[in-house]
This record gives sequence, structure tokens and C-alpha cells, in this order.
Amino acid sequence: MNFTAKMIADFLKGELVGNPDTVVTEVSKIEEGKAGTLSFLANPKYEKYLYTTASSIVLINRDLSVNGTVKPTLIKVDDAYKAFASLLELYASNLPQKSGTEQPSYIHSSAVVGSGCYIGAFAYVGEQAVIGHKVKIYPHTYVGDGVKIGDNTILYPGVKIYQGCAVGANCIIHAGSVIGSDGFGFAQGEDMGFKKIPQLGIVIVEDDVEIGSNVSIDRATMGATLIGKGTKIDNLVQIAHNVEIGHNTVIISQAGVAGSTKIGKNCVIAAQAGLVGHIKIGDNVIIGAQSGVSNNIEENRVCLGSPAIDAGIQKKALVVFKKLPDIYRKIGEFERYIKDHAENERKK
Amino acid sequence: MNFTAKMIADFLKGELVGNPDTVVTEVSKIEEGKAGTLSFLANPKYEKYLYTTASSIVLINRDLSVNGTVKPTLIKVDDAYKAFASLLELYASNLPQKSGTEQPSYIHSSAVVGSGCYIGAFAYVGEQAVIGHKVKIYPHTYVGDGVKIGDNTILYPGVKIYQGCAVGANCIIHAGSVIGSDGFGFAQGEDMGFKKIPQLGIVIVEDDVEIGSNVSIDRATMGATLIGKGTKIDNLVQIAHNVEIGHNTVIISQAGVAGSTKIGKNCVIAAQAGLVGHIKIGDNVIIGAQSGVSNNIEENRVCLGSPAIDAGIQKKALVVFKKLPDIYRKIGEFERYIKDHAENERKK
Amino acid sequence: MNFTAKMIADFLKGELVGNPDTVVTEVSKIEEGKAGTLSFLANPKYEKYLYTTASSIVLINRDLSVNGTVKPTLIKVDDAYKAFASLLELYASNLPQKSGTEQPSYIHSSAVVGSGCYIGAFAYVGEQAVIGHKVKIYPHTYVGDGVKIGDNTILYPGVKIYQGCAVGANCIIHAGSVIGSDGFGFAQGEDMGFKKIPQLGIVIVEDDVEIGSNVSIDRATMGATLIGKGTKIDNLVQIAHNVEIGHNTVIISQAGVAGSTKIGKNCVIAAQAGLVGHIKIGDNVIIGAQSGVSNNIEENRVCLGSPAIDAGIQKKALVVFKKLPDIYRKIGEFERYIKDHAENERKK
Repeated sequence: MNFTAKMIADFLKGELVGNPDTVVTEVSKIEEGKAGTLSFLANPKYEKYLYTTASSIVLINRDLSVNGTVKPTLIKVDDAYKAFASLLELYASNLPQKSGTEQPSYIHSSAVVGSGCYIGAFAYVGEQAVIGHKVKIYPHTYVGDGVKIGDNTILYPGVKIYQGCAVGANCIIHAGSVIGSDGFGFAQGEDMGFKKIPQLGIVIVEDDVEIGSNVSIDRATMGATLIGKGTKIDNLVQIAHNVEIGHNTVIISQAGVAGSTKIGKNCVIAAQAGLVGHIKIGDNVIIGAQSGVSNNIEENRVCLGSPAIDAGIQKKALVVFKKLPDIYRKIGEFERYIKDHAENERKK
Repeated sequence: MNFTAKMIADFLKGELVGNPDTVVTEVSKIEEGKAGTLSFLANPKYEKYLYTTASSIVLINRDLSVNGTVKPTLIKVDDAYKAFASLLELYASNLPQKSGTEQPSYIHSSAVVGSGCYIGAFAYVGEQAVIGHKVKIYPHTYVGDGVKIGDNTILYPGVKIYQGCAVGANCIIHAGSVIGSDGFGFAQGEDMGFKKIPQLGIVIVEDDVEIGSNVSIDRATMGATLIGKGTKIDNLVQIAHNVEIGHNTVIISQAGVAGSTKIGKNCVIAAQAGLVGHIKIGDNVIIGAQSGVSNNIEENRVCLGSPAIDAGIQKKALVVFKKLPDIYRKIGEFERYIKDHAENERKK
Repeated sequence: MNFTAKMIADFLKGELVGNPDTVVTEVSKIEEGKAGTLSFLANPKYEKYLYTTASSIVLINRDLSVNGTVKPTLIKVDDAYKAFASLLELYASNLPQKSGTEQPSYIHSSAVVGSGCYIGAFAYVGEQAVIGHKVKIYPHTYVGDGVKIGDNTILYPGVKIYQGCAVGANCIIHAGSVIGSDGFGFAQGEDMGFKKIPQLGIVIVEDDVEIGSNVSIDRATMGATLIGKGTKIDNLVQIAHNVEIGHNTVIISQAGVAGSTKIGKNCVIAAQAGLVGHIKIGDNVIIGAQSGVSNNIEENRVCLGSPAIDAGIQKKALVVFKKLPDIYRKIGEFERYIKDHAENERKK
């Protein structure tokens, strides 16, 4: 990129303080700024860097009172973090985009591929697959038979989508993620051996979903495992068969959701949490990191711990937990006190 | 599929109630039934759907007493769930099967490939590899030098099997799983740097094993990491070097087993559990979700918690755990009581 | 391999007891020894096997006093385990090494590839990528545009390195690992929907790093996610955006580190532990398995538990935890005692 302070201030509708011709070519954190970089200051804890940074331009909140000498050109905006994010987005949208079809790739003759797509070398598009417009299918990606991919979706290298699954528009799936592997379903026989229950359903990923790297989402036994519109899933997450997740829910790294569990909209499942199967989590629920959820949770609740309970109660119990050796010692003292006392009473 | 009620009843040796010519073309859950689908009713909780479902045929248990008007054709069998599973299996076995060799694929001239195999585009079969009959090797799968794969085994897209490892017959390995990566073995030098211990062993996966997606199973330092016959491993599981797992054991998603640990047969290691290295777990042991096991466990035990203890003791302790703030308050009261009392005694 | 006892003793500068012409062709554990194998005895617990093993040669510690009849040829060294490791290394370095370029592979015309490299079939090397000398890029590996790979580094099958990232010399990255996927960064709008924060940074992996299979390391929002020289990362580990890890730190399987957290040198993060974002872990810190770390930790500390506290305190509390039902019962007794006592006092 190569922008002047004036161009940025105009784009952000911000107030410019300093030289309008200052040029920046990249972005940096304010504490790592150097000549030619653009930074932002949103967190007051970082204000000190405003007076020492070598960044050429800094975005600041309009209501910040500057208490010192500032070298960079400043652009004052309502929300420096959001303004910066929108600049990053503008910048990212101007980066060179992959397009065209690299060779060798494998596109079945019955597959339909929209216009403006990128098909990387060694990508595989199966029989009757339907790929939308402006889709990016990176190298080593597997799009199975009958899979549907919506417009503008990006499948990074090595994504594997099993036959029959559907991914919506404007989705991003990162490298190594697997969509549609068999659900973990077996019937145990009298000889203790297991018989596989065929998994005949699919996975449906709705629009605007982002899925991190090395995620596993299993196909339903029947029907569909469902990832709702706008939901964001981090790396190494496990979603079992027949799980249904609502809109705009966030599932953070290494969390796992067991079979047939239903999660509402606008929830946050924090890192390394686990949910058992066949439960229902209401809307707007927050589940803390490393929690183990084994029961339904009603909407708007915050839960924590393994087993997960109300976060407030859990936190209070954890404070006392550390004092257990002390409690145990005191209990011994009470026992002795009561014993001595009873003896004294008896003697009287 | 396209089956009549009569065909299904004959196959299942069930009793037909209703129109023998009723045709079904797919399966559905009873609560999501529609015309042309086949459902089953096994769990009494779902009985109400029997009287409202739009499914065309429903399998029910022979001993169910029907208390209402039922529209679908019924087929009465001893065990509706198992009967349904066997129908799914019949159905699945009739789905079109992949076969032949897609191009480009890479099969080393010294590799041996059995008859009736499917070799997907971009599949790699290394030097001296030996592939059995009717094996399916999906696109982007890597079968390293000297690897042996038994008959009827399915390797889904992107499976990676390092050199020298062996996979038995009738196995299924899902996308992205890695068999035979180096065990995590290092010797620390005086400079705090680590020297790699070469991992010269292999992984042996016996017959009838299913391995989920994105699983990691490390090769042994010497000898073999062993996955016993009939064992089922879910997604994102970690199996370290020199682990040995018995027959028909189940390891659920995101669980991890550290180096050289031995697990018996018919065990269940639930989701997100972790086992330290160099311990021994007896046969028929159940380890609860998110447990942390740091000691040997004798056969037939049920363990829970981190650190894992007897599940009954753990559950009782967890009930009290929530009351810790209350306990702590009461302890304070006792202390005050004893202090006051002692003072009163002194005053007397 | 095919070595005589004399050759091995000379290489190790060890003392030979027995037939110098004894030949070994492979290595084995002492308890699984057979004719023609070389074993070692380091752990005194295994001494009994010295008198029963069928191994042809056994390395022992010079200070071991042999108390029985020994059949194998012995080689006495200062440290049998280290000596054995160095033999493994010698052996491994003599195994046949992959070299040359298999077809079809994809190397962009603008990429630079050093001498003595192995480029497997279906490997992808992007625009402006720079590959050092003697690098091994196994099949299905993706080296994105502008990626730099140092000399002697091994990328096992299916590794995915996103554009712009850098991997140092003498590194090993195992199958399925993803370097440089987008950090998990979103800004929530008033409609509860999420807007992606573009992730414009990279990942830098320094020299001598080993990364296990199916690991996810996210690129920085700005700047770089950094894996320090000599650090070893096990399978299925999650490293979020802008994390920085010092030299010679060990992160064991299925652990996760959230965004912007900084970890010092010579630390051990044990299996399935989780660290929240934006914290600082000092040098030489040990974090126990399944711990959940939510605060800064000063150097040289050992922490355990979720939430993680000093390991000594945690262990003492855990001992008492099991006794909670007992404690609760006693508290009930005290309450009754005090109540009865107060009543008696009142009656007096």
C-alpha cells in the first residue's frame, strides 16, 4: 500500500493533525512503529507509546486529550480500533487475488464451476459438484461428489469436503479442516465388537461462516449437521454428528461438541470446553474455557467449570478450593475441641 | 433406494401392519418424517411422534402397544434400532462405490496394488508399498514407502501414512489423519537445547479399526505403536509413541494418550480425557470425559476427574465442591463460636 | 544396518565384554530382544531383563554391577541411554534419503529451490518462494507464495504453509500441520454479526524447531507469530495469532496458547494445558497437564490446575478434595453439636 495521511483521513472521515502528505506503506503496532508505518491507539494503557513511537501516522480516538509532544501525523476518529480494522480490510481487499485454474487440477466433467474462480494445482472437484462464482479453491483441496459451494467462498489448501455436503456463500475454511467425515456411531454386539452405523446425512455450513484450520465436522447419521449463518469456529474444534449451531455463535480453539447437541445463537464456547451429546444450549450463553457441560443451559447464562455450573458460583468455590488444606486442618481442630470439651463436661 | 414395505419386512423378518406396497426412497428421523421416508421408533420418549409423523413406513419394537391412530405402514421387529441400523447398512452397501484409478496419481513402479481398488487423483503410493484388494485410496492420500494396507480398507482424502507402517483389513481412516509421524522424543543437553531421538519404529493398525479425522498416531521409537483389532478412535485424538491399545476399545474425540501407555480391551476413554505416559489401563475400564489419568487403573473400574479417581467418589466430592463458599462461612462461624465460648468459660 | 560389537564399542568409546564379532542388524527394547538386535539398559527397573534377553548386544552403564549370567555381548559406556540415542542417530543418518523431484509437482517459475532438495509428487511451491539447500518437501505439501524455508528442513506430507511465512534451517514439520492460517479476530457489530479483522502478519519459525502433526499456528494480525529457536511442539497443538515463544521451550500434545501470549525460554507446557491470551510466562516455567493458565507466571515457577496455581498448593488441595463428602458430614455434626450445646446452655 502507499497512502497519504489526507487520503486516509478522507476515507475515515477523520480530523487530520499534522502533515497531510505523510506517506505510509505498511501497518504496525504503535509500540513497534517505524517510519512509513500506520498505527492506532485505542487502549489507554498504550498512550505512552504515542509520545515515543516512530510510526508516521497514528489513528487516535477523537476524545483523547494529548498530553505531550507527538511526532507522527494524527488522524482523530470516533473509534480508532474500528477505523483501523476498516483500513486493514480496505488494504486486504486490494492485495493481489488468486484467479484462474492451475494445472494439474482435477475437475470432473459433470461438475459446474462459476465464473471468476481460482482452482489451485492438485485441487479436486468431484462428480456433480456445483461451485459458485468467485470461489477460491486452493491446492490440495478436495471437493467431493455432489458438494455445493456458494459464491465468494474461500477453501484454503488441503480442506476436505466429503460428498453431498453444502457450504454457503462468503465462507472461509482454513487449511486441513474436514467437513463431512462419518459421525462416530457404532452398535456394540454381544461379542463386544462394534458394528458401524452408516452415516448417511450431510453437513450444511450456512453463509458467512469462518472455520479455522484442522477442524473436524462430522456428517449426520441422517439429516444434517448444521453450522448457522455467521458462526465463527476456531482451529482444532470438534463438531460431532447431528450437532446444530445457531447464528453468530463463536466456538474457540480445541473445544468439542458431542452428537446431536443444539447450540443457540450469539453464544461463546471458549477454548478447550467440551459439551456432551443430546443437550440444548440457549441463545446468548457463554461457556468458559475448559468447561465440561453435561446438562441443558438456558439462554443468557454464563457457565464455568467441569462439570460446568453458574460461573459466579464456580468462581467463589474456586477461591475456597485453594484453602482446602487450611479447612481440613481447622476441621481437625474443631474435632479435638469438641472431644476435649465433651470430656470436660463429662468430668464436671 | 426404492423399497416397498413388503421387501423391508421380508428382509427384517418383521410383521407388516398396513399397505405392503408402500414405497420409501429415503430415511428420516421420525420427528422429521415426510412422505416417502422410512423411520424407526426405539426410544419410548418419542412415541408421540408415531401418531403425527408423515413418514410412510415406521419400524417399531414388537412389544410396543400402539395407543392411537397411526397413518404410516408399520413393521414390527424385535429391536427397531438394530433393524434400522441393518437397513442403513444394506442401503449404504448399495450406494455407488468408487473404483478405478483417476489421473494424475502416483504409484511407484515397485508398489503392489490388489484388484478392485480405487486410487483417487493425486493419491501417492510409495516404493514397495503393498495395497490389498478392494482398497479405496481417496485423493491426496499419502501411502509411504513400504506401507502395507489390508483388503477392503478405506483411506479417505488426505490421510498420511508414513513409511513402514501397516494398516489391517476392513479399516476406515478419515480425512486428515496422520499415521506414523515421529514420536516426541528428545534428550536435553547441558545447554538446554534438545537432541532428537530418532523414531525408528512403526505403527500397526490391526483389522476392523476405524479412525476419525485429523487424528495423530505417532510411530514407536523402536517396535510398534499398536491399535488393536476392532478399536474405534474418534476425531482429533492423540496417540503417542509406543502406546498399545487392546481390542474393541473406544477412544472419543480430542482424548490423548501419552507415550508407552498400555490400554486393555473393551475400554472407553471419553472425550478430552488425557492419560500420562508409561501407565497400564486394565480391560473394561471406563474413563470419564476430561479426566486426567496419572496412575495405573485395574480392570473393570470407572474413573473420573483430573486427577482421575473412582467415579463414585469424584461425583460425591463434586456435589460438595459447589458448597465450598458455604462451608468456608460455617468454618468461620465455628471459629467465632469456639473463641466466644472459650472466653465465656474463662470469664466464669 | 549391519554392525559388529567391535565397531559399536569403538564408535562409543565403550568397553567390550564378550565376542567382538557379534553382529546386529536392528535395535529392540531389551524386554523384546531377539537374535541380531541391539538393546540398552539404563533404567535399573529393567535390570532383570539383562539376564533373560535374547538381544545379541546390550549397552549398559559402566557403573552397573552385573549380578548374574549374561548371554549377550555387553558394551559398557558412561550413559547407556545417551549412547543408544547417538547410535540411533548414526543409524537414522545412514537410512536412504529421499532426493530429486517427483512428477507431477508444481514449482512456480519465480520460486528459487536450492541444491540437493527432495520435491515429492503433488508438492506445491508458490510464487517467489525461496527454498534452501537439502530441503525435503514431501508429497501434498503446500508452500505458499513468498514463503522462505531454510536449509535441511523437512516438511512431511500435507504440511500447509500460508503465503509470506518463514521457516528456519534444520526444522522438521510433521504431516497435516498448518502454519499461517488466519488469526481468530473479529469485531462484533450492533447486529451481533461479526466482521473479520484481516490478518496481515506472518508466522516465523526459527531454526532447529520441530513441530508435530496436525498442529495449527496462526499468522499475526500485524507483525509475526514467533516460534523460537530449538522449541519443540507436539501433535495437535494450537498456537494463536501474535503468540511469541522463546528458545528451547517444549509444548506437549493438545495444549493451546491464546492470542498475543508470550512464553519464555526453556519452559514446558504439558499436554492439554491452555493459556489465555495477552499474558506473559517467564523463563523455565513448568505448566502441568490440563492446566488452565489465566495470569502471568514469573520465571522458574511450577504451576498446575485449572485455574493454574502453584503446583505444591494445588496438589495439597487436591488431596483434601477427595475428602469433601467427609468434611461436609463433619460440618453437619459440628452444627448439631453447637446447636445442642447452645440449647443445653439455655436450659441450664
